[in-house]
Amino acid sequence: MKSARIAAAVEEFKNAFTNVRIFFATKCNNDPGVLRVLHSAGTRFEVASVDEIGILRSLGVPGQDMLFSNPVRAREQTKWAARAGVYRFSVDSPDELRRVADEAPGSCVYARLSTGDGSSVVPSEGKFGVDVPGAIDLLVRARTLGLVPYGITFHIGSQSLTPAALTAPLEAVRTVLTRLVDHGIRLQMVDIGGGFPAVYDEPVPSLAAFGRAAAAGTARLPYPVEVFAEPGRCLVAEAGTFRCRVIGVARRPSGWWVHTDLGVFNGMMEVLESSGELRYPIWDGRGSAARRSWHITGPTCDGQDTYARNVPLSADLREGDELFIGSAGAYTTVYASRFNGFAKPRTVLT
Amino acid sequence: MKSARIAAAVEEFKNAFTNVRIFFATKCNNDPGVLRVLHSAGTRFEVASVDEIGILRSLGVPGQDMLFSNPVRAREQTKWAARAGVYRFSVDSPDELRRVADEAPGSCVYARLSTGDGSSVVPSEGKFGVDVPGAIDLLVRARTLGLVPYGITFHIGSQSLTPAALTAPLEAVRTVLTRLVDHGIRLQMVDIGGGFPAVYDEPVPSLAAFGRAAAAGTARLPYPVEVFAEPGRCLVAEAGTFRCRVIGVARRPSGWWVHTDLGVFNGMMEVLESSGELRYPIWDGRGSAARRSWHITGPTCDGQDTYARNVPLSADLREGDELFIGSAGAYTTVYASRFNGFAKPRTVLT
Repeated sequence: MKSARIAAAVEEFKNAFTNVRIFFATKCNNDPGVLRVLHSAGTRFEVASVDEIGILRSLGVPGQDMLFSNPVRAREQTKWAARAGVYRFSVDSPDELRRVADEAPGSCVYARLSTGDGSSVVPSEGKFGVDVPGAIDLLVRARTLGLVPYGITFHIGSQSLTPAALTAPLEAVRTVLTRLVDHGIRLQMVDIGGGFPAVYDEPVPSLAAFGRAAAAGTARLPYPVEVFAEPGRCLVAEAGTFRCRVIGVARRPSGWWVHTDLGVFNGMMEVLESSGELRYPIWDGRGSAARRSWHITGPTCDGQDTYARNVPLSADLREGDELFIGSAGAYTTVYASRFNGFAKPRTVLT
Repeated sequence: MKSARIAAAVEEFKNAFTNVRIFFATKCNNDPGVLRVLHSAGTRFEVASVDEIGILRSLGVPGQDMLFSNPVRAREQTKWAARAGVYRFSVDSPDELRRVADEAPGSCVYARLSTGDGSSVVPSEGKFGVDVPGAIDLLVRARTLGLVPYGITFHIGSQSLTPAALTAPLEAVRTVLTRLVDHGIRLQMVDIGGGFPAVYDEPVPSLAAFGRAAAAGTARLPYPVEVFAEPGRCLVAEAGTFRCRVIGVARRPSGWWVHTDLGVFNGMMEVLESSGELRYPIWDGRGSAARRSWHITGPTCDGQDTYARNVPLSADLREGDELFIGSAGAYTTVYASRFNGFAKPRTVLT
């Protein structure tokens, strides 16, 4: 992972999103070194579990600088988070609202709106979120439970390729804010979530384009609020490169295969998650002029361990050569298991 | 995990496959307690990495009772395996054959044939295997490299639902054995691989049906050989039940949702791997007469963490209730990561 690249991405984000406070989506890369670089660059953090809070606290990040944006959490997770100083919790059900009121009394809550399909490469699927009346109901109830109706959030889906995906959710946010005025509730915060893309094998819209869409939407709100965002992938993906080793090559009826010590299960899981839609840039250390089309697969016995097909690499690739996988800083090591007995890759910061 | 159920499955397999030696596919469940039960029931083991060899050795399984069936392995893995007493290695390329000759001189090798689509639920995809001439070439070369041309293997794909899937590969094996006679080579072993199914939400063909197909195919071989099999799922899946906890319920625009402390990333990954084709039996501890259709999702923030949809469970399901997931003893904990900070489930043997 390149520290300078992470810091540069944070700067780019700040410039693209004026007056937007950054909460890095910790799930995306929870390596302590990476989190330290982000913290130094001025980000705060979005968390989804007490484990993530624990890592951040060990790096000196106070709970006050974290947003607990996982809208459904076990009761003891809420309690523990509150003890660690976290005071802002997202909710998307009356059930969750009660848990927050019980375990973190007096906290700030922000309701999560459901969104339509945001044309994202790694889609969400209705797992979280309420509609506009549901959000209003939750925030009104929050007050009666002694909680602070603090804000509203949504998520357009990971690796979104459509800045306009922000427009409809921000319009729904406007409606919520407007209607809440009738209840005497004025929110402090609008959290536009994450999903901003990184470059893999093809160009993507600029962060500036997403920033403009966000600014246009928030400008239409009935009164000024603090605007938060939860970028993950766009801050760290391109800073990471997997450096892996060719353990064998083989010609098979299905083509030419290169086997590496990295695979789907110990780092490249998002290939499976995205049904192969996410295509990482891949190159080799041999760099021969003669090229051949290779299928690239991991070290396990599993048929699902193949993470790239028909990639042009050196024709004379052989055991011991190095293979490089770019844009590998997000949603890679965090998904790694030890399936078949192969270890998670080590993170090195440069 | 129910020990008695594992032992019973081994007995059933032995009865279904007469005179077939069992090598349990360690990748399927590598819990030391589970492996100990299998060992006591009389199985040997199929391994894919030195890590798996290490676990088995710590349980007192000698390397001689292991088959290293991952046909492509890093050089140092071969060396380490040979030192641990493993002497049988699968190969499917000249490259691998040389590595075995270098690092484990004098070993026995068995060639892996590629197979067509075996109508399996979790398909392979051409990752491994050579055609008939390729297998003959490898086994002839093996001799010139000082290795023992020992056997031949194939794999019909995981959770195969078609006993007849064994027929064509065994016919190819017959051709290989017949043609090798002309080279003065007589193999000792035919390994029919794994892929034998477990019951999830629907009935599957019996192990006896697979046993009959295997017996018919091996009876046609030109001379008697030892027959090996590498069952995994069918020996352990049904012995396992996930016991998880409801951490919250929510009504959303997309339906009724129940959130549990178990999800795709810490145990239910095969749902994603099989594109939802693998449907586990699920029931709840409340057991109310009134039912409702639920979507069931894990504890992370990830949209991909949903592992079942439209499951009829108690209508009044609530936080703290227990949910049970059956047929969970295979390909669950071995895929578990700590994504978003949620731990791998604990295995309890009863």
